[in-house]
Amino acid sequence: MKKDGIALYYIVKEKLLDMIDEGKYTPGEQFPTESDLCEKFGVSRTTIRQALSQLKLEGHIYQIQGKGTFVSLPKIEQSVAPYRSFNEHLKGRGQQIDTEVVDLTVVSADKRLTKKLEIAENDPVFRLERIRYADGLPLLFSITYIPWKVTPGLTKEECSGSLYALMREKFSIQLSHCVESIEPILIDEAISKHLSAPIGAPSLLLNTVTYSTGNIPVEYSHEIFRGDRAKFTFERKL
Amino acid sequence: MKKDGIALYYIVKEKLLDMIDEGKYTPGEQFPTESDLCEKFGVSRTTIRQALSQLKLEGHIYQIQGKGTFVSLPKIEQSVAPYRSFNEHLKGRGQQIDTEVVDLTVVSADKRLTKKLEIAENDPVFRLERIRYADGLPLLFSITYIPWKVTPGLTKEECSGSLYALMREKFSIQLSHCVESIEPILIDEAISKHLSAPIGAPSLLLNTVTYSTGNIPVEYSHEIFRGDRAKFTFERKL
Repeated sequence: MKKDGIALYYIVKEKLLDMIDEGKYTPGEQFPTESDLCEKFGVSRTTIRQALSQLKLEGHIYQIQGKGTFVSLPKIEQSVAPYRSFNEHLKGRGQQIDTEVVDLTVVSADKRLTKKLEIAENDPVFRLERIRYADGLPLLFSITYIPWKVTPGLTKEECSGSLYALMREKFSIQLSHCVESIEPILIDEAISKHLSAPIGAPSLLLNTVTYSTGNIPVEYSHEIFRGDRAKFTFERKL
Repeated sequence: MKKDGIALYYIVKEKLLDMIDEGKYTPGEQFPTESDLCEKFGVSRTTIRQALSQLKLEGHIYQIQGKGTFVSLPKIEQSVAPYRSFNEHLKGRGQQIDTEVVDLTVVSADKRLTKKLEIAENDPVFRLERIRYADGLPLLFSITYIPWKVTPGLTKEECSGSLYALMREKFSIQLSHCVESIEPILIDEAISKHLSAPIGAPSLLLNTVTYSTGNIPVEYSHEIFRGDRAKFTFERKL
């Protein structure tokens, strides 16, 4: 169905976008249902679905199964350009970053950790859980593993700032590089509590192994970013 | 609950991982329920949940709300290193890549497209839908927008290969760079059909704007990667 050569769903989508831009629907707010929108615009459910699908694709709204559709918050861009840590990046944007240390324990290295950290099975490893807040709202939940021998006697108090800075300054470790991967996961029950995000919402899992000079792994971490608050950007030469 | 100083959930997790590695549970197969695993290992539901949560975090299994837990396929790694296209990357790994052109139409530029492609409102724009298969299985669904003036008269047949190669060779366009962003989204009904993936499964949305020399946008695309088949990797200097 078209009007002056423009697909109807485009017109609906543009109107909805304008309403979001104008603040008629605000970030985090529940979006009208398909039926409500059908009635409001006097168009078919297929047209509304196409419009919503485009808005979702472009990240303006997000859906949680069984709960409905919500308006996205403006996302925090995380550049994967080299030479810049996430902390530095956010501070550079003038954002207030707070860290909450949830837990610090010592665990035995399992197979996964022995492989990632290149240590022996059952070697002692720090397991650190933290929550990062940007401007007071939870942005990411992280689990970090550090071999005992890398930061012997590490305390909870020391973990409230940058771990990289701590490794460099207190433990005289020369950091070389990190290898990272990004995957999509769903917020589960445990993470839901930490991030104040609904179970089943899409999120990004960033896995990192950090190496010191000499190619020795000093840290293995999982960071779960709220999908409605973060995106990663990068540039490629062609 | 610990055994010889090792948390019980670690032991359960390691056993489950071994079973996956040994092929007892195969990729795409439904994983046992929490109750089944409680009985099998004789441990509490909390312990099983911790073990499953770790396996999920590490990408070995994935959950679909209301459907259960499944074993992940080995993921295809997509490096975000510069100078290499996804096609080249996959071919370099010896993978068979096939492209299905779903649809090619001409649409009017809406506000979003005028902004991204730096063209006038209502300018004609090609809208191309494609599915990429790696080794015969759907890997990604893409929607690509190209201004008419960039590739005038583009045909469906021409879109079955690399668009970059086509732009360079047939339309003599000198490509310069692209700006990309990655966000997590959930598979919706329409995409579910294209990717043979369940509704609600986590996936990665890669948005790209490609520029020719002179900083002129020549393409704007959305690519949705099946989350159980793809991850993005990169390396940073520290």
